[in-house]
Amino acid sequence: MTGPCLEQAILKSLPDTVDSIVVAVSGGVDSVVLLHLLQRVAARCGLILRAVHLNHCMRPEADDDARFVEALCQQLNIPCHSESCNVAKLAQQGKISLEMAGRLARRRLLEQVAAETGAQLIALGHHRDDQLETLLLRLTRGTGISGLSGMAELDLPWWRPLLFCSRRQLLDYARRQSLSWREDASNLDPLFVRNRIRHQIVPRLKDINPQFAERMVVLSRQVAVEEDFWRYQIETHFPSIRVACDDGLRLQRSPLLGFHPALRLRLLRAALFEVRGHLHGIEAVHLQAIDDLLTGARSQAQLDLPGCWVARRYEHLWVRTAAPAMPPRYDVALQIPGEILLPDGRKLVATVVEQVEIETRHRVYVDQAVLDRPLTVRTWRPGDCFVPLGMTGHKRLKQLFSDLKIEKEERLRTPLVVAGETLLWVAGLQRSGFGVVTPLSVRPVRLELL
Amino acid sequence: MTGPCLEQAILKSLPDTVDSIVVAVSGGVDSVVLLHLLQRVAARCGLILRAVHLNHCMRPEADDDARFVEALCQQLNIPCHSESCNVAKLAQQGKISLEMAGRLARRRLLEQVAAETGAQLIALGHHRDDQLETLLLRLTRGTGISGLSGMAELDLPWWRPLLFCSRRQLLDYARRQSLSWREDASNLDPLFVRNRIRHQIVPRLKDINPQFAERMVVLSRQVAVEEDFWRYQIETHFPSIRVACDDGLRLQRSPLLGFHPALRLRLLRAALFEVRGHLHGIEAVHLQAIDDLLTGARSQAQLDLPGCWVARRYEHLWVRTAAPAMPPRYDVALQIPGEILLPDGRKLVATVVEQVEIETRHRVYVDQAVLDRPLTVRTWRPGDCFVPLGMTGHKRLKQLFSDLKIEKEERLRTPLVVAGETLLWVAGLQRSGFGVVTPLSVRPVRLELL
Repeated sequence: MTGPCLEQAILKSLPDTVDSIVVAVSGGVDSVVLLHLLQRVAARCGLILRAVHLNHCMRPEADDDARFVEALCQQLNIPCHSESCNVAKLAQQGKISLEMAGRLARRRLLEQVAAETGAQLIALGHHRDDQLETLLLRLTRGTGISGLSGMAELDLPWWRPLLFCSRRQLLDYARRQSLSWREDASNLDPLFVRNRIRHQIVPRLKDINPQFAERMVVLSRQVAVEEDFWRYQIETHFPSIRVACDDGLRLQRSPLLGFHPALRLRLLRAALFEVRGHLHGIEAVHLQAIDDLLTGARSQAQLDLPGCWVARRYEHLWVRTAAPAMPPRYDVALQIPGEILLPDGRKLVATVVEQVEIETRHRVYVDQAVLDRPLTVRTWRPGDCFVPLGMTGHKRLKQLFSDLKIEKEERLRTPLVVAGETLLWVAGLQRSGFGVVTPLSVRPVRLELL
Repeated sequence: MTGPCLEQAILKSLPDTVDSIVVAVSGGVDSVVLLHLLQRVAARCGLILRAVHLNHCMRPEADDDARFVEALCQQLNIPCHSESCNVAKLAQQGKISLEMAGRLARRRLLEQVAAETGAQLIALGHHRDDQLETLLLRLTRGTGISGLSGMAELDLPWWRPLLFCSRRQLLDYARRQSLSWREDASNLDPLFVRNRIRHQIVPRLKDINPQFAERMVVLSRQVAVEEDFWRYQIETHFPSIRVACDDGLRLQRSPLLGFHPALRLRLLRAALFEVRGHLHGIEAVHLQAIDDLLTGARSQAQLDLPGCWVARRYEHLWVRTAAPAMPPRYDVALQIPGEILLPDGRKLVATVVEQVEIETRHRVYVDQAVLDRPLTVRTWRPGDCFVPLGMTGHKRLKQLFSDLKIEKEERLRTPLVVAGETLLWVAGLQRSGFGVVTPLSVRPVRLELL
C-alpha cells in the first residue's frame, strides 16, 4: 500500500458526518504516520484535528517524547493537548499492571479531550501487527470465541483506520515521506508479554507461514461477523425469556432449554454481562455449571461465581451480583389476643371472636379449647411436619413447600403458628386439621396474616 | 489423572452398544497407554479389541517398531494386524506430503480392518497436546472458525478417548505401570512443522501462561458447540433456499439476502461443500466474492474459484464444479420450405402454408412477399436490434434478453431468424413487426420452433 493508498484506506474507513477527530499520538511511528495521513485527509475533507499526548513519566526519554510530539504538531499546524500523569502511582493505587494503568489513563484523557472539543472520533494508530499480537495474547491467556474478533476498526468513539495495514507499510510510508519518530525502548523489554509475543513467537509462526498475519486477521473478521450474528440472536431472544423482577435478573427455564446449547450459553453470558457489567473472570466452566443447574434434576440449587450468584428456583434462573440476604429466623410467643410484627413488615394477629367467617389462606380460626399450650410464631425447622386439614397422616413441611414450589428464600418468610410441638398453621399456605372450629367451639381465635 | 481416572475417562467416553474396537498402535507411548487402558476396560465390559500397526518403512527402526507392537499385543493377548506400506512411494504418486501420505495409508488400513472385523470404533491415541498442536498448526496455516473446533472426541468410527488427557498424564501412567514403548526419532525433526510448533512455540506460550493448553482446549470445545449450532441452522435453512436443478446447485437469492451475513456465508460454504465435496482451497476472500455477487448490482456475473464456478443468474445463485460449456454459435441458411436442426436438438422449421393460425411464442407467420433476401438462422451478435411487434422504434436484443431475464447460457440457445440484416423473430421469445401477415398476404411462411 503506497501513500495515496493508505490515504484512501483512511477515507474509506472514515464514517460520514464526522467533522472533528482527536488523535492519540505517542510519538512512535504508528501514531506519527496516522497523524500525517489524517492531516492530509483533513485538508481534503475539512476535518478538525486535535492531537493528544500523554506523558507516562515512566522512562527517562518521556519528556523528550512529549516535546517531540508538540514540535511535530506545531509543524503540522495541529493543536496539541499534552499532559503528564504518574502511571506507576496509578498502577499501584489501582493494583493493576503498568500496561493497564497506562491504557486507562490514556483512554480517560482522550475521552475527556474528545468531550471538551466535541470530537466524534478518537483515532488510534493500531495496525495489523498490533491486531495479530492482540489475538495471540488473548489465545495465550485464554479467550472465548468472542475475543478472537480482536480490536474493532470502529467502536465509537474509537477508530482504528490503519487496522488493516501492516507495520511494514507504515514504516515504508514514514521513510518515503522522510518522517521522523521516536523509538520506544520498552517495546524491546521482554518483561512485557506483548513484546515476547512480538519478538519470540510471531517470527517463528511467520517462518512456518509468511501469510500468518493476514490469515489471523481473516479469521478475526469472520469471528466479528459471527459475533454480530450472536448479538442479533441475543437481542431477539433475550426479551422473550426475561421475567419482570426487581431483584436481580430472572430468566424462564423452559424456553432456555428449548434453545440449542450454543445459543443457551450465549444467552447465559448475556445475563451475566447484564448483572455484572462485564465478563471478566467468567470462564467456560462457570457457564457450564450454570447450564448444569438449568438442565439438572434439582429444582432449587445455587452457585457462587466470580462477581455473581446464580440460582435455579424451580422454573426460573435467578442471577444477582451476590446471594440474597437470608431472612432472619425467629421464634416468638403470640398472646391471645395479641399481634407480632414480622421481619418483612407483615403482621400476625390473634383475636378472640364471636363469629366465624370463611377461612382463607391468610385467615384461619382455631378452637381455643383445644390449645393446651401457649402459641408461638416461628420460622421453619428441619423435620417440621403437620397433619394438613382434610388428611389423616402427617406431611413433612418440606414436602408442602416443594409441592407449592415455594422458593428457598420465601420459605423463611413463611410464619408458622405452633402450639407447643403442634403446627397449627403454615400462614399464607395451609392450615392443619388440628383445632378446627366446630359448632360447639367457644371463643374461637382468629389468626390473620396481614 | 491417575490410572483408574484415565480408565474412568475412557469408560465415560465409550459410546453404548459398542462391542468391538480397532486400536491404532504405532508403538509410541500414546498408543501403548491407550492399548493398555483399553485392555483393562475391555476386560470389565467384554469388548473385543484388535490392534492395527502400519509399518511406514520410512525409518531404519520401523521393523523393530512393528516387532515391538506384535510382541506387546501377544503379551496383552490382543490380536494384532500388522502391515507394511511404502509411504514414500505413495507420497510421490499422490503428490502429497509424507505426513499426509502416512495418515491416509493408516486411515485406509484401520477402516479396512474395522470393516472386516465388524468393529464399531477405531480408537486413536490423540491427547490434549496433540489437539493443541493441531489448533496451532491450523491457526498458523490459516483456518476459519470451524477449524478451531479441532479434532473431535467422537466422529464415528473415529474415537479419541484420551483427547482431554495431557501427554504428561500418559507418560506418568506409562511409568507407573512400567510400560515400555518406542521413541519415534522423527518427532524431533524440525523439518516437520508440527515438531517446530511442539518444541519451539508451545513451550514459549506455556511460559506466558502455564494453563495455555487447557485454555485452547476450552476454546475448541466452545467452537465445537457453536459449530453444531451452525450445522443445525444450515440443515434448517438450506432446503428452503435450494432450487430444484439437475445441473449443479441453484440457490434462491432473495431469501439468502434476508439472512444475517454470518448465516449467509455459512450457507454459501455449505453450497460449495455440497458441490466440491470439501472446502480445501476455499478462503474467506472467495466467500466474500460470492457474497458480493449476490448483493451486487450486476444481475448476471460469474466467478471462477478453486474447484468450482459460481454465477449469479438474476434471482439465482448457480454453483457448479466448472463453468458450463457455452452453446456453440451458428449462422446457417434456412430454405423455404426447409428445416434446421439446432445444436440443442430442437428444430426450426419453415413451411409455406395456405391458412394462418394464431401465433404463439413458438410459431409465427411471415409474409413471403416482403422477404427480399434469403433467411438465415443464427445466434445473437453484439449490437443486434429489432422493431418488436407493436412498437415503432428499435429495441436492442440485449435489452429484450434482460427484460425477460434470459440467462447468459440460454441467450446462445435462442435462435434468431434473420432476413439479411433484418431480425424477424427471436424464436421462443418475441417476433418483430416486420413481415406480419395481412389479409392480402399470399403464401405466408410458417416458422416454428419445435
